[in-house]
Amino acid sequence: MTAPTPTRDDKFSFGLWTTGWEARDQFGLATRPPLELTAHIRRLAELGAWGFTFHDNDVIPFDATPEERQRIIDQLKAVTEETGLVIEMVTTDTFAHPVFKDGAFTSNDRSVRRFGLRKVLANVDLAAELGATTFVMWGGREGSEYDGSKDLHAALERYREGLDTVAGYIKDKGYDLRIGLEPKPNEPRGNIFLPTVGHALAFIEQLEHGDIVGINPETGHEQMATLNYTHGLAQALWSDKLFHIDLNGQHGPMYDQDLVFGHGDLISAFFTVDLLENGFPSKPGAYDGARHFDFKPSRTEHETGQYDSAAANMEMYLMLKERALAFRADSEVQEALKYSGIDELSQPTLGEGETLADLLADRSTFEDFDADKAGERNYGFVRLQQLAMQHLLGFRA
Amino acid sequence: MTAPTPTRDDKFSFGLWTTGWEARDQFGLATRPPLELTAHIRRLAELGAWGFTFHDNDVIPFDATPEERQRIIDQLKAVTEETGLVIEMVTTDTFAHPVFKDGAFTSNDRSVRRFGLRKVLANVDLAAELGATTFVMWGGREGSEYDGSKDLHAALERYREGLDTVAGYIKDKGYDLRIGLEPKPNEPRGNIFLPTVGHALAFIEQLEHGDIVGINPETGHEQMATLNYTHGLAQALWSDKLFHIDLNGQHGPMYDQDLVFGHGDLISAFFTVDLLENGFPSKPGAYDGARHFDFKPSRTEHETGQYDSAAANMEMYLMLKERALAFRADSEVQEALKYSGIDELSQPTLGEGETLADLLADRSTFEDFDADKAGERNYGFVRLQQLAMQHLLGFRA
Amino acid sequence: MTAPTPTRDDKFSFGLWTTGWEARDQFGLATRPPLELTAHIRRLAELGAWGFTFHDNDVIPFDATPEERQRIIDQLKAVTEETGLVIEMVTTDTFAHPVFKDGAFTSNDRSVRRFGLRKVLANVDLAAELGATTFVMWGGREGSEYDGSKDLHAALERYREGLDTVAGYIKDKGYDLRIGLEPKPNEPRGNIFLPTVGHALAFIEQLEHGDIVGINPETGHEQMATLNYTHGLAQALWSDKLFHIDLNGQHGPMYDQDLVFGHGDLISAFFTVDLLENGFPSKPGAYDGARHFDFKPSRTEHETGQYDSAAANMEMYLMLKERALAFRADSEVQEALKYSGIDELSQPTLGEGETLADLLADRSTFEDFDADKAGERNYGFVRLQQLAMQHLLGFRA
Amino acid sequence: MTAPTPTRDDKFSFGLWTTGWEARDQFGLATRPPLELTAHIRRLAELGAWGFTFHDNDVIPFDATPEERQRIIDQLKAVTEETGLVIEMVTTDTFAHPVFKDGAFTSNDRSVRRFGLRKVLANVDLAAELGATTFVMWGGREGSEYDGSKDLHAALERYREGLDTVAGYIKDKGYDLRIGLEPKPNEPRGNIFLPTVGHALAFIEQLEHGDIVGINPETGHEQMATLNYTHGLAQALWSDKLFHIDLNGQHGPMYDQDLVFGHGDLISAFFTVDLLENGFPSKPGAYDGARHFDFKPSRTEHETGQYDSAAANMEMYLMLKERALAFRADSEVQEALKYSGIDELSQPTLGEGETLADLLADRSTFEDFDADKAGERNYGFVRLQQLAMQHLLGFRA
Repeated sequence: MTAPTPTRDDKFSFGLWTTGWEARDQFGLATRPPLELTAHIRRLAELGAWGFTFHDNDVIPFDATPEERQRIIDQLKAVTEETGLVIEMVTTDTFAHPVFKDGAFTSNDRSVRRFGLRKVLANVDLAAELGATTFVMWGGREGSEYDGSKDLHAALERYREGLDTVAGYIKDKGYDLRIGLEPKPNEPRGNIFLPTVGHALAFIEQLEHGDIVGINPETGHEQMATLNYTHGLAQALWSDKLFHIDLNGQHGPMYDQDLVFGHGDLISAFFTVDLLENGFPSKPGAYDGARHFDFKPSRTEHETGQYDSAAANMEMYLMLKERALAFRADSEVQEALKYSGIDELSQPTLGEGETLADLLADRSTFEDFDADKAGERNYGFVRLQQLAMQHLLGFRA
Repeated sequence: MTAPTPTRDDKFSFGLWTTGWEARDQFGLATRPPLELTAHIRRLAELGAWGFTFHDNDVIPFDATPEERQRIIDQLKAVTEETGLVIEMVTTDTFAHPVFKDGAFTSNDRSVRRFGLRKVLANVDLAAELGATTFVMWGGREGSEYDGSKDLHAALERYREGLDTVAGYIKDKGYDLRIGLEPKPNEPRGNIFLPTVGHALAFIEQLEHGDIVGINPETGHEQMATLNYTHGLAQALWSDKLFHIDLNGQHGPMYDQDLVFGHGDLISAFFTVDLLENGFPSKPGAYDGARHFDFKPSRTEHETGQYDSAAANMEMYLMLKERALAFRADSEVQEALKYSGIDELSQPTLGEGETLADLLADRSTFEDFDADKAGERNYGFVRLQQLAMQHLLGFRA
Repeated sequence: MTAPTPTRDDKFSFGLWTTGWEARDQFGLATRPPLELTAHIRRLAELGAWGFTFHDNDVIPFDATPEERQRIIDQLKAVTEETGLVIEMVTTDTFAHPVFKDGAFTSNDRSVRRFGLRKVLANVDLAAELGATTFVMWGGREGSEYDGSKDLHAALERYREGLDTVAGYIKDKGYDLRIGLEPKPNEPRGNIFLPTVGHALAFIEQLEHGDIVGINPETGHEQMATLNYTHGLAQALWSDKLFHIDLNGQHGPMYDQDLVFGHGDLISAFFTVDLLENGFPSKPGAYDGARHFDFKPSRTEHETGQYDSAAANMEMYLMLKERALAFRADSEVQEALKYSGIDELSQPTLGEGETLADLLADRSTFEDFDADKAGERNYGFVRLQQLAMQHLLGFRA
Repeated sequence: MTAPTPTRDDKFSFGLWTTGWEARDQFGLATRPPLELTAHIRRLAELGAWGFTFHDNDVIPFDATPEERQRIIDQLKAVTEETGLVIEMVTTDTFAHPVFKDGAFTSNDRSVRRFGLRKVLANVDLAAELGATTFVMWGGREGSEYDGSKDLHAALERYREGLDTVAGYIKDKGYDLRIGLEPKPNEPRGNIFLPTVGHALAFIEQLEHGDIVGINPETGHEQMATLNYTHGLAQALWSDKLFHIDLNGQHGPMYDQDLVFGHGDLISAFFTVDLLENGFPSKPGAYDGARHFDFKPSRTEHETGQYDSAAANMEMYLMLKERALAFRADSEVQEALKYSGIDELSQPTLGEGETLADLLADRSTFEDFDADKAGERNYGFVRLQQLAMQHLLGFRA
């Protein structure tokens, strides 16, 4: 048995800032030179990627002249044509330059907010021009270190204003573009607004143009808040708001590690892939968006290691996919799922046509219910998990 | 200067399960005897509380006969009349009995879900009968240890069905009762559904009867997920969904400590009280609900210590309130807030009457904007925080 | 390929409090009845265990009469003789009874400390009588919630006094027994003394009788403090202090989950087994103590699930062992290890016979060293990790 | 009441990399220009500092010529003479340059280890020349992201070799210099060796020249591992190994925040200052080393804010000191300490002259001991904590 290799049908895509990361970190200088743009993209194509993504300033310097900007855009178009790679998502850097040190849409400085909005709008045009269908917004500097340094009501008002302005602009222009908000609990700010999948989903409901706004959850970001990534994806899917994903690896609450997907919490990664590929038991069907990786090759790796790291993400995904498909197809697993009542959960609690009055009148549900007896049920969850482990570790292959 | 003492106007209330906790924990037996119901309530009244709250099974045994149940209800009514205490909130125990080991509304076992619904509905009637205005629902067992043991779509469907059934019942009956969902990330389940303020707010938006459903965030629960409690309260207030609060203390991600309010992250507690008492700078006004404590007297404390612990919550709150009022009233603080641009954030990013086209045409916002210069602004957040610290520590009193 | 099954040679042992856990937790009642002692032990034998362990009060009630105590001891002896199981470790419950609510060896109450010492000494005699070779001490209540409630110097003095008294007693009696301290960061106390492997190792160095005191690290306890369990084992082995182990599963900093081994951080579990079975590259050789599980069958499991959970631990270990042996034997892995310089680390930094003066005089090490060039090395750690993943997931089997 | 101001007697010192931090972080560019060396130091003197510290490369560029190096050293000597500031500690940057990406003393690359050793030894000479008495070693890159990428035994061997080489060199040279190891759990490596105070203390015990090696614990580093910093200091003091301290602020397990001291967990900071200033109840006496701050002015602050941030550290410390002294002097507190048995813990568990045989023969300690009764003691820890809170918040001033 050998590890599977990726094809374009797998819909793998990479942020150029990921494989291209020069490995400058909080405590150290860059260990790798910048990658030349077209060579970088060609190499991703050779590795089996289907698409790539970028922040404006990953490719176009912050202070580029219009000519310089156009030259790079032309270069991007040429290389996508040549390689067949898709630019499926574009995002805006509203965090690196000092001007954004207190945020872009929620900076206390109004002139910064206006500049931030303009920068994002300009990038919306670019995204549309390049054929991207998702426009990710990560508000990495929208937040605070000190609760007193923000009017939290005003901050949410401004965030809403900013989002609705961008979404409204997309609609006005008729762009085929949906926004994906990316939640993160902290780093680089002490507390970032919209810290989790839940907060972002709730926020979207308050927008005027929320219909074209969804989320782009990142594995590690949820895990930094001790949360279950797959559960987060599930709530997003249930709300029809999973517009994009950022897959990577993380070891719980610590700095943002951006490890290769699956190199963090492996069992969680298995169930993430299971959800993306198999869907819910009661609502099967694969997630059909990009399988996008937002990771960083470790700082110890030089150029060979950079691309090995990229390849590792796809291989991990495909190995987990093979295991997840076999898991669901196994008749012993199906029997165990039944034993555990997995399918029973999709039956409504009230019967078809049953009214609340009927339920209240049904003594078997309460007055005559033997709770002690029902409490003795063996749900068999550990056995089921162990079957998953046998599959994951290749002992049923 | 001495610590302030509580009055009924402070609207402090306690869960009977808090002061009455017998201190049986995961690793040890009870260290305290049960408190006699009326003596317990009288003592809370003497300490200065305004109200109390309970789970059905805090006062009525799980298997009580109807007569036993009525006797206890009569006792509750008598003691509230005698003491003048308010039963402001009632909640249901859907977690202690073995029958709920896989949840109540989202148990894989449909008969358990039906029983759980009946238990909750019965308790809604009791809550209404006793004059409670908030009905808290903490789904402590709604969740899983293993991702494979739940159909996550079905689980959210059942949770929605359960909530809408209860909320619909409240409306049918015409009860003056609002539901407060209480999020928690984990413990006793490995992952609890609706793990944070954000997830619960998002979930409510999917309900048919979401208008009478809000949230009851607990300090420690958000902090167990590394999140900022005050930020969570702010998003709930911004969404008009802060129906109730559970104040206590916690030291970040570990087991649920339920310390006295303020005995965990003190600076966070200061800003929580600041928000509850002063409101937002751009939207002043105190939160007008109960100041409810959901804490546990440490297991080392015997009866004297139990009530000392209760009193400590109220004293902490009042000391912090005094400091927060003085902080906002201080002219140097007001100058520092202005310097930091706190008020500037409440100004819309687009001017009154300004269209998107106007913004795009305003070269001063982008083409001619000096980002480097704007990046040199000193926001003065540390000085502002230090002024808060001087107030908090009583060095400006 | 099917999952391997355990034999006695695998040296698996279980705490009776693990499989026997009645599933009473912080928020709920027991969901399972107590297991009958001999049936319980017989069943462990049937499952393939080699030994079992217990706290005194797992088998002998706290207030048992001497006769009752003797009857149970006789029963234990009979069933071990019958089954051939080994009682490899005994430990003392100094945490469940209210008397220990502020600790046993470090309680502020001297009469409690004296009682705690007597309880432990009595249990040392029992351990020796039953042929145990390890005597674990977990000071779960030695700690505090509030820094002011302990004289921390005195606490460490008393802890040392207690340990040295017990270790001295063991020596006096000539028992073939070594003590294994079990660190834990928190729960049930807010902060437990000797919170990690490191703190315990450091503490042992201050003992008079430290030669017979080592540690018993538990997977989840280190992970609750965000630490790497395998790194902790390595430092203990390097210090010749790994006397025993407690294997289980955990998802980072939250309540103590005690999941099945491998059901938490699976990659970490793989490298734990790799270390225990293969040893260090520069110091091969398996750890030869018991493979002891300190886990809890999930509360959703009834009797069938209890034993399925026990079996899952052994199966996980054996599957990981098979993968770890193959990983080390793979020639491509060996080449990759070499490429990454794993073997180079076992070469002393100073050459054989090289003095410090020689090093200082060697200009190639500093004055003429090309640091920039050396900084370009590709360590290949991600490729190596990916080879481990291919093995772990059975894609090189 | 106004906040106290620092004097040189307070022994406050700052790392030049702290106030001088240009605010380049993982996600953003520098927001502040470098500070001119002498102006920077003069300003610290004006603010009331007593000393300063630095990494070699904070002042001397990595690739400085000998002449450049000497010029800077002369400048340092001149400005310390002028200002009277002490260079109390010097440390080595073995983490920023790419050559150290896999560590210095434990890099898999032997040539890097030799270079690292030389760099450190050169810096030892500089430290001695400048009159420093502490030489801090933070092995920020000594660690790994993947357990397989290190031979953990060899890594500890090399770490020991490196430390003993440096300590031996200090002794050979007769320098009045002690080494302070600085533990950290993670960031920038996924797992750093010697992750906590405990691991470093244990490691020191294995050194040949451990007598001149102690630790330099940083507030935030321990808190990143969910640990209690004051407890860590206490164990270090108990082992006579607290050679230096790094005070700052942190909000639990997340990225290394380096906030102003006291701006993280304030209650913990209060008890840290209480320990440093008052000592243990049973062993009074202040810690007499530098009160050294290792923090970062928030990235939102420009030059004014940089120095405001420096000043805030000292003011926080002094406010907490004033509160801690008053707390210990308060007779009601003394009574409460007595009630809680704080002093009782310093009484040996065995009486003076009491043998183990005596203890075993004393039936009052076990056979006749009323454990249930002893379990009813009210320790009064919450009341004591609340008295601390009244002091901390200035309500007993």
